[in-house]
Amino acid sequence: MVVLQLSHPTGSFNIRSKLTCFHRKFSSKVSSNVPSTSFISSSHQPDYPASLSPPASQSVAAIVFGDASHSRLYPLTKRRSDGAIPIAGNYRLIDGVVSNCINSNITKIYALTQKNSTSLNSHISRAYSGACLANEGFVEMIAAYQSADDKDWFQGTADAVRRCLWVLEEYPVAEFLLLPGHHLYKMDYQKLIEAHRDNNADVTLAVSSSMRCRDPSYVNVRVGKENQVVEFIKCQGKPPIHSKLEESIMVIDDAHDTFPSMGIYVINRVVMIKLLREYFPKSNHFRSDVIPGAIALGLKVQAYKFDGYWEDMRSIESFYHANMESTKMTDMPYNSFYDRDFPLYTLPRHLPPSIITDAAIKNSIIGDGCILSNCRIKNSILGMRTRVGDKAIIEDSVVMGSDIYQSVTDDREGTATSIPIGIGEGSHIRKAIVDKNSRIGKNVMIVNKDNVEEGGSEAKGYIITAGIVVILKGAVIEDGTVL
Amino acid sequence: MVVLQLSHPTGSFNIRSKLTCFHRKFSSKVSSNVPSTSFISSSHQPDYPASLSPPASQSVAAIVFGDASHSRLYPLTKRRSDGAIPIAGNYRLIDGVVSNCINSNITKIYALTQKNSTSLNSHISRAYSGACLANEGFVEMIAAYQSADDKDWFQGTADAVRRCLWVLEEYPVAEFLLLPGHHLYKMDYQKLIEAHRDNNADVTLAVSSSMRCRDPSYVNVRVGKENQVVEFIKCQGKPPIHSKLEESIMVIDDAHDTFPSMGIYVINRVVMIKLLREYFPKSNHFRSDVIPGAIALGLKVQAYKFDGYWEDMRSIESFYHANMESTKMTDMPYNSFYDRDFPLYTLPRHLPPSIITDAAIKNSIIGDGCILSNCRIKNSILGMRTRVGDKAIIEDSVVMGSDIYQSVTDDREGTATSIPIGIGEGSHIRKAIVDKNSRIGKNVMIVNKDNVEEGGSEAKGYIITAGIVVILKGAVIEDGTVL
Amino acid sequence: MVVLQLSHPTGSFNIRSKLTCFHRKFSSKVSSNVPSTSFISSSHQPDYPASLSPPASQSVAAIVFGDASHSRLYPLTKRRSDGAIPIAGNYRLIDGVVSNCINSNITKIYALTQKNSTSLNSHISRAYSGACLANEGFVEMIAAYQSADDKDWFQGTADAVRRCLWVLEEYPVAEFLLLPGHHLYKMDYQKLIEAHRDNNADVTLAVSSSMRCRDPSYVNVRVGKENQVVEFIKCQGKPPIHSKLEESIMVIDDAHDTFPSMGIYVINRVVMIKLLREYFPKSNHFRSDVIPGAIALGLKVQAYKFDGYWEDMRSIESFYHANMESTKMTDMPYNSFYDRDFPLYTLPRHLPPSIITDAAIKNSIIGDGCILSNCRIKNSILGMRTRVGDKAIIEDSVVMGSDIYQSVTDDREGTATSIPIGIGEGSHIRKAIVDKNSRIGKNVMIVNKDNVEEGGSEAKGYIITAGIVVILKGAVIEDGTVL
Amino acid sequence: MVVLQLSHPTGSFNIRSKLTCFHRKFSSKVSSNVPSTSFISSSHQPDYPASLSPPASQSVAAIVFGDASHSRLYPLTKRRSDGAIPIAGNYRLIDGVVSNCINSNITKIYALTQKNSTSLNSHISRAYSGACLANEGFVEMIAAYQSADDKDWFQGTADAVRRCLWVLEEYPVAEFLLLPGHHLYKMDYQKLIEAHRDNNADVTLAVSSSMRCRDPSYVNVRVGKENQVVEFIKCQGKPPIHSKLEESIMVIDDAHDTFPSMGIYVINRVVMIKLLREYFPKSNHFRSDVIPGAIALGLKVQAYKFDGYWEDMRSIESFYHANMESTKMTDMPYNSFYDRDFPLYTLPRHLPPSIITDAAIKNSIIGDGCILSNCRIKNSILGMRTRVGDKAIIEDSVVMGSDIYQSVTDDREGTATSIPIGIGEGSHIRKAIVDKNSRIGKNVMIVNKDNVEEGGSEAKGYIITAGIVVILKGAVIEDGTVL
Repeated sequence: MVVLQLSHPTGSFNIRSKLTCFHRKFSSKVSSNVPSTSFISSSHQPDYPASLSPPASQSVAAIVFGDASHSRLYPLTKRRSDGAIPIAGNYRLIDGVVSNCINSNITKIYALTQKNSTSLNSHISRAYSGACLANEGFVEMIAAYQSADDKDWFQGTADAVRRCLWVLEEYPVAEFLLLPGHHLYKMDYQKLIEAHRDNNADVTLAVSSSMRCRDPSYVNVRVGKENQVVEFIKCQGKPPIHSKLEESIMVIDDAHDTFPSMGIYVINRVVMIKLLREYFPKSNHFRSDVIPGAIALGLKVQAYKFDGYWEDMRSIESFYHANMESTKMTDMPYNSFYDRDFPLYTLPRHLPPSIITDAAIKNSIIGDGCILSNCRIKNSILGMRTRVGDKAIIEDSVVMGSDIYQSVTDDREGTATSIPIGIGEGSHIRKAIVDKNSRIGKNVMIVNKDNVEEGGSEAKGYIITAGIVVILKGAVIEDGTVL
Repeated sequence: MVVLQLSHPTGSFNIRSKLTCFHRKFSSKVSSNVPSTSFISSSHQPDYPASLSPPASQSVAAIVFGDASHSRLYPLTKRRSDGAIPIAGNYRLIDGVVSNCINSNITKIYALTQKNSTSLNSHISRAYSGACLANEGFVEMIAAYQSADDKDWFQGTADAVRRCLWVLEEYPVAEFLLLPGHHLYKMDYQKLIEAHRDNNADVTLAVSSSMRCRDPSYVNVRVGKENQVVEFIKCQGKPPIHSKLEESIMVIDDAHDTFPSMGIYVINRVVMIKLLREYFPKSNHFRSDVIPGAIALGLKVQAYKFDGYWEDMRSIESFYHANMESTKMTDMPYNSFYDRDFPLYTLPRHLPPSIITDAAIKNSIIGDGCILSNCRIKNSILGMRTRVGDKAIIEDSVVMGSDIYQSVTDDREGTATSIPIGIGEGSHIRKAIVDKNSRIGKNVMIVNKDNVEEGGSEAKGYIITAGIVVILKGAVIEDGTVL
Repeated sequence: MVVLQLSHPTGSFNIRSKLTCFHRKFSSKVSSNVPSTSFISSSHQPDYPASLSPPASQSVAAIVFGDASHSRLYPLTKRRSDGAIPIAGNYRLIDGVVSNCINSNITKIYALTQKNSTSLNSHISRAYSGACLANEGFVEMIAAYQSADDKDWFQGTADAVRRCLWVLEEYPVAEFLLLPGHHLYKMDYQKLIEAHRDNNADVTLAVSSSMRCRDPSYVNVRVGKENQVVEFIKCQGKPPIHSKLEESIMVIDDAHDTFPSMGIYVINRVVMIKLLREYFPKSNHFRSDVIPGAIALGLKVQAYKFDGYWEDMRSIESFYHANMESTKMTDMPYNSFYDRDFPLYTLPRHLPPSIITDAAIKNSIIGDGCILSNCRIKNSILGMRTRVGDKAIIEDSVVMGSDIYQSVTDDREGTATSIPIGIGEGSHIRKAIVDKNSRIGKNVMIVNKDNVEEGGSEAKGYIITAGIVVILKGAVIEDGTVL
Repeated sequence: MVVLQLSHPTGSFNIRSKLTCFHRKFSSKVSSNVPSTSFISSSHQPDYPASLSPPASQSVAAIVFGDASHSRLYPLTKRRSDGAIPIAGNYRLIDGVVSNCINSNITKIYALTQKNSTSLNSHISRAYSGACLANEGFVEMIAAYQSADDKDWFQGTADAVRRCLWVLEEYPVAEFLLLPGHHLYKMDYQKLIEAHRDNNADVTLAVSSSMRCRDPSYVNVRVGKENQVVEFIKCQGKPPIHSKLEESIMVIDDAHDTFPSMGIYVINRVVMIKLLREYFPKSNHFRSDVIPGAIALGLKVQAYKFDGYWEDMRSIESFYHANMESTKMTDMPYNSFYDRDFPLYTLPRHLPPSIITDAAIKNSIIGDGCILSNCRIKNSILGMRTRVGDKAIIEDSVVMGSDIYQSVTDDREGTATSIPIGIGEGSHIRKAIVDKNSRIGKNVMIVNKDNVEEGGSEAKGYIITAGIVVILKGAVIEDGTVL
């Protein structure tokens, strides 16, 4: 039998019935002091954050990894870190995790990266640099660097943390909170840390009960009594992908005791330093080396179960699905967007409103400052400053928008093409991701007409992955092209 | 005789020839040393700003008046200064003038107000406080205040400036630029100041050639040779208001030499101090007392002609029309919205994208973070966070949106009503201004069914002016109401 | 009977035992549910702030009064609110209270003022506008204003709050915290609010045990059992002022049960609204009308005892003493200055370092960016950018410094005088307050040579109060003057 | 004969006579249209910046190199880029160049680095991220990064720019301005760019006439008629170092025509792209490859002569001297510190004032928030938060201060040592650089007693270079140590 400490999920309406069922069974056995109503707490109830002592702002430092290991998000990552990929119209991938931190009163945040750090750095320094005057708060970017001691790049998450320890040690925090930056979910980390402290744990890792298995590379965690982690199990083979989203939830049987690890770790400051410098000075990764090593050493490693919506966007497909989810108003799993108490932060903008000539828009999200002519938008995300021409149709697609406004006749850019940024007249886009600053000509068809699963090429300006057409950043698709 | 149409001079090429013609005739008479090209500036040409020496950032201070004198914008001003009224979805009235300053490299900006200063103060300090580190720049609010010397409120524009002179004198600028805050237009003030300096003028005032006469209280300026102002003429009687906007342009006869004053003055620092302290120490107003007095004194008072779009929003009607203009994409007179070189600044936000279930939207502007269900929007402006319910119809209206996201079931607000903020299901709104945080119930008809010109009452939550229904800020309109 | 010394309770270990004794006796009578340790908090202990639930950032709004009622700080307030007076070299009076708020996790802060609001507004919007992104935090200035309903200035603290209630009600906080802005002390308001909540009080007011009685206008509070306030007693007559500071502490007899009210109130939101709108709609002051009225009504009004250093700077004399205290390193009563966990915030600056040619400096504070020639400084405060000429001597004085750097030969300012800003060569200043931007010539003696208690005049550029010479802001004192 | 375009130096009093002499000779021959008064313009004259058209803010992007090539600043660079080294009490090396940009109206600034980028990144994002709202301004850090195309670090300045071209091309600027980040000087780059444009040059490089030759690695530039650069000459051998600073100015004979290149280049956008991508796609350095190559190609490469104070801090010795210069008030060559029109920007702080018990301070600079007991400071720089104990003596030294306030009894840091940060009681420091957060015990002598030129070791916590003792960042020097 498994006894898990319960977290308080936040939202996720469409999977609530299932979760609630699971929870009922579960809680009838193990949960006594958590009121059942808290389980279906939505963000609209005054569900105040945990009150840690000492407060998280002074005792916890978060370390966010800007690059996913084994990320399969190329070509979206051709010019940027995973964390800098635009998502849901107005945001960047990393905003979800950084907002979780701010909303959890964690204000010492380090973001580590080495791949294409420029745009992530620019985003973070503009979005968050002035955020947190009080309590010596900051969001600080640490790009991989050369030093007198070490001329190499980061070799993995553990190596990165080890090499930055001299920075990370600066503030006398009690715990480090390690967070992958490419996840989408809403968690009050204060509750995780409270559990960690209550358990007197050395390490606490979050596990998920609502995970959608689209990726084979997860690590499962076997949990013993009193939530202690007893084993790390690598997934074997590719888990089944179900055709319907609702069925893709992994069945978690309470007869079982294994849960997917979310890659989120709370580690005591002193334990972190000893693990990286003394016990495993050569280990490069937390997941494969350091955490299993800590278990083997007999440290107290605990699990903390998280029931909320959670999307790990390490593939084009999961990234696409996370975007699609954000368009659903009635049953929005990730409802932070319109949540007054747990807002999603990002780079502040002062863009003009979207201007629309004549558009029919269904189940879609329209970012700031779009310019839409006579067009039809369905099941799609339009990012900031997206321009859509007359008679264009966009379906089931993610259009990331543009960094600038470009007049149709503007020739200052010195570009070789006469096709302006945006979606040209009469074009039709279906099941595609159109990266920023792309120039889609007139009467272009991006519909994956041959129903290809994998294809395209960078030279042509697009790549097809899992049947999704990805138009590269700044790509030019000539008038009349049919993909 | 020249008759000007509804003027779209900035960037609208088809009328440029006309303007140029007009200008040539005009300048042949009155303008000698201003190059004729300076009058046909278009924002779409890479038309770099004037290069003043010394630069405007160090030699000019702008004084923006947050309240219009004789403003007839009530009830929009019930809880705010004129300058704080939301406009065009994402902005406040004063943003237009402050953005003009920033884009003209003027970074010492004082905003004077005394009526309901709170929201204007909040807007300005949040939007602009960190804007201009370089060159000792700032946007500083001066609310009327009591001092040991003076227990009164400001008695007019001249009195306000006189009482604040001790602050305004702080920086050794060469000129003060006086600006009404409730105008909408796009002007590079550097060109105005350049003309002022080239003329060795004491005072230079801007006059308009494209003005729409909806208001009787304008002052006309008679211009002599070499653009010198020879007389201030008060308008007599109410100018005719034409039913169609296109015809409402004042007929300007080139045989004449009078132009409406825009209320924009450049005054040399020393001249300003002498005028207010020595010559006219008791005068309260620039327009009626100080400027005519300066002419009478024989100071060199010059006119600077401005041909661009200009809207003076001192009535509900003109405010409504300015909003309506902002929805027109093809021939937008006030095209600063999407102008990369001359952007419109405002309070930076990090709102979620607008989410739309099923909407047909025509000739409209959608502000940030709206939530639209199955609805129809036509010729309308939706401000930030506007929520529109199922089957609602909004036509020819300005909906200002909401300061917060409120869940339909959220009862934390402690409001007596169960009607949530936004436009309820099945409601129909036509030719109305719906102020912020209003709660329009279900199946409400706001259509001015009796075709009233003036009516309503604050107690009922709405006022009708010039046939436009204005719903008060935070008003509650019960389900089924028909107005 | 307990006699308290000059109290240095925060961090000064040697007197802690005394305080604790006092407290024990005290609490045995009146305090039951407040743990005794809560009274001997020291900032040097890792004394984490209270963990309120719900957290203060979401449930409390602070209202800071920028003007002291019955303030006798003129002429320092000639051009500014009390809250904007420079203090301790780098700060403004109001920074102490605003920093207390931020350090107490209270991030919704309104500052109300009507006297000379300009400089306070400028300070607050520059210092704090970007402070608190998270949790919808802000420091918002509300200057007195005219509205359609009310053309008058604020008539008192209660009137001011009543007229701003429509703004203050914006956020659904649980309590309002009312704070005079001209006090210097360090308090974790979360502990005050915690006591308020634990007591289920309607109103809780803070009382002081370590107060120095320099002012007759305090209200004493009679406390009954369980800390309930049973009576408000106006002080009668002027309390004795002792010649030596150490003896000026009020004798507090533990046989008695009266304590001076600090003017700090926690009031439940609903109670506040009822008191101001229903019960006492005509009352203008909290101290004289509303709070005594609440007691009379039978509301639960509790006292919260504060033992720390507390200075109420409502006279030139107390302001001078507070400054003098800040120069004492070894036993600094107000040690927030160098306290890492409870920092004092203010306007961020990027001034150059102080440059010193040859100075002997004793028991003094040197603000940022001073320029000191060959001079002697003793028991003094030099504010930002203070320039001190050769052979000048400054003793027992507060020099507020300058808003700008002015070259000795700089004539751009257009001032009539040739005396530059700062303290001229060979001048001698003793027991004086030199306000900002003053121009003290060469060989000036400001030593109160006639030992006057009250004297001087604005016209002469100085006023003498309680034997302290106050040089007015921007005053020019000609070479060789002897005061 | 050499005809050089004259720049307008700013300040530099002690070398003015020499410069003026030089200039007279020089200008008598070649300068006709530059008024001679402009040559000795000091910052106190209203010497307004050049008025470029189009303005620099829209047409120029600056690229600042955060690392010096061939830097010999170790161990100051052990944990930071050259640009992040603290200098002159309150600043970082890079602030000088970034402030020059801001003061020259250049607001698109990229900072490239790869060595220890963390602290430079932190400094830049905190100091400048909100600086320049207007005109799309920014200071953006580009750390070396891995991308799909390239797994290597930057191989030199040209390689770094080439790999970042995709970012740098983002804005359609006309020219790039390349700037080493480790120089200290005050230049209005607008004048440099004006000369570049007036000459219709492809490349313009700045040369110095007042250079102090402490470093052999300079490149000399041979200038032909009309300021065209005809040859790049590598310096051979170490130039003589003179004992007295005044004599160390290189004698520049007007019979000669060679000048040291400052490493500052203006390059036309299109030329830059062609040089890096087409002509020299494999070249790694501008100085040794690209610029000489451009000359060889026959491009128009012009020289712009700069006469002002200029310090190239690429060695410990030159860094030390630049600091020492900053303490001289009467003849400060680098007088930007107190220059109102050309201020030096840096990270804004809100530190407490310096508190001084009893100090004799001569010819020194005291940064913000120092805590000085009974001590003597002479010819020294004390950085922010420096703590100096009783009876300590500091002479001819640079003490960088501390990142935090640490109580003497504070044990939260978990450090192994009991020695607090700062300079202990009775210690004596002479001709040393004490890096940040060092802990100098009691009665320590850091006087280079053996008069060593080179010595010490990292393990011991100090290194001696050119007779200057450098205490490493965070080093602990035990009580009683004598160095």
